[in-house]
Amino acid sequence: MIISYQNAEIFVSALSYTLGSVKRSLEELHSENLLVGAVETLRQVGYRCSHGLEVDETLLDLAAGSAAQALRQSQVKPQTLFFQHGILDSMVVPWDSREPDAATRNGYFAPSLMNAIDLGDVPYFTSFASGCAGFTFLLAAACALLVCSPEADPALCVMGDSKPPEAKFDLFRERILGSDHSSAFVLNHEPIGFQVLGINCYSTPRDTVSFLEVVKRTVEMTKRLAASVGVDLSRPDLLIHYPNVFPDTWAMVTRSLRLSPSQQVLIDLPERAHCGASDAVISLSRAHRGEEGRFHVVITYGAGLHLAISILKEKQRSSEAI
Amino acid sequence: MIISYQNAEIFVSALSYTLGSVKRSLEELHSENLLVGAVETLRQVGYRCSHGLEVDETLLDLAAGSAAQALRQSQVKPQTLFFQHGILDSMVVPWDSREPDAATRNGYFAPSLMNAIDLGDVPYFTSFASGCAGFTFLLAAACALLVCSPEADPALCVMGDSKPPEAKFDLFRERILGSDHSSAFVLNHEPIGFQVLGINCYSTPRDTVSFLEVVKRTVEMTKRLAASVGVDLSRPDLLIHYPNVFPDTWAMVTRSLRLSPSQQVLIDLPERAHCGASDAVISLSRAHRGEEGRFHVVITYGAGLHLAISILKEKQRSSEAI
Repeated sequence: MIISYQNAEIFVSALSYTLGSVKRSLEELHSENLLVGAVETLRQVGYRCSHGLEVDETLLDLAAGSAAQALRQSQVKPQTLFFQHGILDSMVVPWDSREPDAATRNGYFAPSLMNAIDLGDVPYFTSFASGCAGFTFLLAAACALLVCSPEADPALCVMGDSKPPEAKFDLFRERILGSDHSSAFVLNHEPIGFQVLGINCYSTPRDTVSFLEVVKRTVEMTKRLAASVGVDLSRPDLLIHYPNVFPDTWAMVTRSLRLSPSQQVLIDLPERAHCGASDAVISLSRAHRGEEGRFHVVITYGAGLHLAISILKEKQRSSEAI
Repeated sequence: MIISYQNAEIFVSALSYTLGSVKRSLEELHSENLLVGAVETLRQVGYRCSHGLEVDETLLDLAAGSAAQALRQSQVKPQTLFFQHGILDSMVVPWDSREPDAATRNGYFAPSLMNAIDLGDVPYFTSFASGCAGFTFLLAAACALLVCSPEADPALCVMGDSKPPEAKFDLFRERILGSDHSSAFVLNHEPIGFQVLGINCYSTPRDTVSFLEVVKRTVEMTKRLAASVGVDLSRPDLLIHYPNVFPDTWAMVTRSLRLSPSQQVLIDLPERAHCGASDAVISLSRAHRGEEGRFHVVITYGAGLHLAISILKEKQRSSEAI
């Protein structure tokens, strides 16, 4: 499904992120019994380390860090909040589910964060179940609200997931190593950061999709989206961003789209592993060079299963420059 | 935050719902240890019975029932799906969170439902944390996507919550008795059912809000929304829909808005109790009489905390009449 925002003039800025404070090597992860798969398998993919929460650290701490950073950078007062989580445990803060009168009163994450960073009465929306494609699904929903209501502007968007206590840091079947992460950004009509041109979303209830299908579908969806928003994929300054998973699969996408390896942004995989939905935020925040008009194709893929692509246009000014 | 959809020509139709199959009286709930509060307290509010899941029944069964019914009524092939849940446990279907490789792969509810009713690859969005105000938040998000993408039309919207095993059917502090419920409806550009004119959303991270503030804020938000979408609140055929909670509070809202008690829709409270976000769907489905141009103000209030109001305009045709 293609959603076009090019006439809406909506911009992503103040891209911020916070990772869990404890950085562990593959060997440390293994020795602390935090892996399902083998060290060697993950090393072959390219992973070296992952970030996890410190004993006294919570996902709320990470999210409060990213959100506060985004607000400092942008200096805006948000009028709407958008949250996204891919893991069930991340949706709430600890609450006593055994206390009968409290059992259905989940400690929603959003109001806890609002209290943590002293944000008052602001309408908030929370998106779930788009897994590591969450950036694109959040962006789609938030941009749509901004199109429909001038009162939603500016919006603060916050994402974050940390592994549940019983889980490991890797996924065996997919050979993915993850990190605990949170990220935030601001959406508004001020022409800084990146303009959102359009989004192409695909979901399937199937359990698995072959890598070959992922490649084929990513290529087709990117081409269709680019055509729809009038972006020429052969421009040599165009960049394509991938999440820190399946590097070989994405290399095939890059080749199929006739892009050069130097146009591919898949950064810090060894040191940072896969930061879920925040990968896209981290990647975009690092790629901004103030090159007015440079196009960025952002590929996201996640549990659900979802494949979701956005195309953004770089603006000369970034939020840090304000 | 006001969101106006009056120029978008988006319609809600095929309003469907399914409740848990086991209907228990207050005395039965009490004797089965399913209440926190006293029978007499709930009776004073007006409650008599509540609906719960049968032993072999799941929330997925209820949701599959409502979704299939909405699709039968509307005869459309949905191009997008929107889900909403207010309770954490409702977001996923049972999955083995102790199995290390599966721990972060939540069994998302949406794809399970898609498989249950044989819906294939359709982009889906899931909304959480708007509690029993979920109808309005879902409506806001789904309508916005429909405004931004012709490819999102028609959309199937599904909501549902059932109490977690350890929870009771009532909330002590708020004197609310709940039922296990699911509901569904279709959103598209075909002028049947109700046209969505506009929405006014409010959220606060506060723990509690006084009833007096709820009354004052509901009146103010309704007046502002009505003015914004050009609806005259003094029209004698206008109806105002309330959730099946706090009947005395809503009676004060009705009076403050100078509406007559006969314009108030708060139905089946004794027999059906509070069906969370589905209350609004049930209420609207029952109020449709094919009176072209009649206005409906729908009040929703929920954990979060959220107060969210929509104004819809009745169309002569309903989906059943197709």
